[in-house]
Amino acid sequence: MTNAFFPTEKLLLGPGPSNVSPRVLAALGMPPLGHLDPDFIELMEEVKVLLRQVFGTQNEVTFPVSGTGSAGMEFTLVNWIEPGDRVLVAINGVFGTRLANLADRLGAQTTRLEFPWGDVIDKNQLAQKAEDIKPKIICVVNGETSTGVYQPMDGLAEIAHDNGALLLADCVTSLGGMPVNLDAWGVDLAYSGTQKCLSCPPGLAPVSVSPRAVEVFHQRKTPVPSFYLDLGEILKYVGTGQKRAYHHTAPVNMIFGLHAALCEVMEEGIPARIERHRQAAARLITKVLPLGFEPVVKAENRLYPLTTLRLPEGADEAALRVRLLHEHRVEVGGGLGPFAGTVWRCGLMGVNATIRNADTLASCIADVL
Amino acid sequence: MTNAFFPTEKLLLGPGPSNVSPRVLAALGMPPLGHLDPDFIELMEEVKVLLRQVFGTQNEVTFPVSGTGSAGMEFTLVNWIEPGDRVLVAINGVFGTRLANLADRLGAQTTRLEFPWGDVIDKNQLAQKAEDIKPKIICVVNGETSTGVYQPMDGLAEIAHDNGALLLADCVTSLGGMPVNLDAWGVDLAYSGTQKCLSCPPGLAPVSVSPRAVEVFHQRKTPVPSFYLDLGEILKYVGTGQKRAYHHTAPVNMIFGLHAALCEVMEEGIPARIERHRQAAARLITKVLPLGFEPVVKAENRLYPLTTLRLPEGADEAALRVRLLHEHRVEVGGGLGPFAGTVWRCGLMGVNATIRNADTLASCIADVL
Repeated sequence: MTNAFFPTEKLLLGPGPSNVSPRVLAALGMPPLGHLDPDFIELMEEVKVLLRQVFGTQNEVTFPVSGTGSAGMEFTLVNWIEPGDRVLVAINGVFGTRLANLADRLGAQTTRLEFPWGDVIDKNQLAQKAEDIKPKIICVVNGETSTGVYQPMDGLAEIAHDNGALLLADCVTSLGGMPVNLDAWGVDLAYSGTQKCLSCPPGLAPVSVSPRAVEVFHQRKTPVPSFYLDLGEILKYVGTGQKRAYHHTAPVNMIFGLHAALCEVMEEGIPARIERHRQAAARLITKVLPLGFEPVVKAENRLYPLTTLRLPEGADEAALRVRLLHEHRVEVGGGLGPFAGTVWRCGLMGVNATIRNADTLASCIADVL
Repeated sequence: MTNAFFPTEKLLLGPGPSNVSPRVLAALGMPPLGHLDPDFIELMEEVKVLLRQVFGTQNEVTFPVSGTGSAGMEFTLVNWIEPGDRVLVAINGVFGTRLANLADRLGAQTTRLEFPWGDVIDKNQLAQKAEDIKPKIICVVNGETSTGVYQPMDGLAEIAHDNGALLLADCVTSLGGMPVNLDAWGVDLAYSGTQKCLSCPPGLAPVSVSPRAVEVFHQRKTPVPSFYLDLGEILKYVGTGQKRAYHHTAPVNMIFGLHAALCEVMEEGIPARIERHRQAAARLITKVLPLGFEPVVKAENRLYPLTTLRLPEGADEAALRVRLLHEHRVEVGGGLGPFAGTVWRCGLMGVNATIRNADTLASCIADVL
């Protein structure tokens, strides 16, 4: 048993976590405060304001769930699904699949509408299915972390709301690196993670809930089958304009880190940040095409923060990834599901979304090929 | 909106979080690694070994849940309760109440066996009730964070196992500051938090599961109504002796911090650490008695890390706590439930469990009285 752990720093160019700035690291290492301390409550209020800005929303109920992105997903379903509720999930990757799995676990009548991995979903099919089944929730993935697809959101709220459904969006890999405008899109339930384009370590899941969804929550007839994620209980702690009551002990140091990360996002400005992600991804693709790598996703559907690349015919992807990590201290992600063994997931996210990193990754790949 | 947040350091002598050492703060601020990085996997293995040592167990399934203590509680119930299962909860404070509330939410037939707050539970009554209802799980709170009671655990496993039940113990405020010996006690399901006697910030929930409980888990007939906390899914990531698969993105920096904190625990040695907690609590009581404060809990039942004190007649506890915080930067906790308004919860936990802090707290209290 060694007692000291000082790992070599690595360049994290996979699907997340991404690297974080010295400012965020310093914030993580500040002495903790009590979770009901007035200074901490004020900080949490600032975090909520900043999260509304990055989510593009006025939603009062916008805060970080005390868990990783998957806990955020769970928060947005467990509070709104009651046994027997109909849920429609558009699936074109791992995270749609996971949403449907979770809906099943919560007793929903889940309808899966499947589309090819690497494609966006077909809105006409979604509209038709929504009319047929009149679901309570329609789930889509705005940034599919398994495929690198960015789902356009226009028209989806009409499909949901015209059929009496709430619209749910997975924004894990889009928030802070792609346009996210919950209010303009009419999204009712959204979740994300901190370890992607926000460049904060993993451990928190920013979520946002529309007033319409809050109303639907209050119409529940059965208790939420979770205490930790129960919106009603959580609001006693993070709700605005009331005395804070103990619900759980907020992960204070992670909140310090998230606050610093969100400040960096807003100082850069969201349009500039998105443009930086766009340029980095474009540069990477330009540099790896001559090496025999092909982007999986059509140009107009690409999620800038995460580029999926099909490897050259015959390349041993696992062996090459190990060499990248061991010889160059560069991490990229393997493919999942139908992409396992043939596709890499290359993230240029948050502070890592630079021309320098795009060039570095391309030259390291060239070296190990 | 201010962008810089550098709060004044405070002495956290409430029910947690406690202060943490510079070594833990430095660990939290190390550059993140990928959650599937070989260095990180190795670190997670060390954390599991260290947690087994502090829990006093050989349980293979011992690891930190990616959430705060309440997520740990939820983990130990959501994986074992199926609708209609009988659960017996001994209640003598907030956390027994919460366990019962959660069991209800999960569809259990919950039996509440209530004892006075500030007392230990009566084993004969528990045995009688267990025989009557033959529950699947018996829940007790080893360290009641709301009352400062340390529950002796001898004889409880016999009651549980003789009646075919699993024994569950809340060790949130006992782990690392009081004797915790899961194997000797025969505990099947245990959870804790990192922000108490382990002196790591909040955000992780160490849990441990006996082989018997793993077996019972595998006999489930219905899916676990959570994906995030599903033991079967989590084992694909934290299980020993197999290829790690993605389940969720572990909060890597929090794990860095926990590793450092656990190393400090083991370097000090658990018996020495418990003795330090004992001495600090005893000193505090000696010093505040002359100020008119009375310990709530009988000497033989006290949880050293958390001392509950009844304030002198007529004292305005809320105003005094605000003065302690503002004038002395010292945080103590108010009472909960029947103790609200008349009792303080004073934590001398982890690195804070010192004679110096006991004396400091007593002199600050004397100053504001």
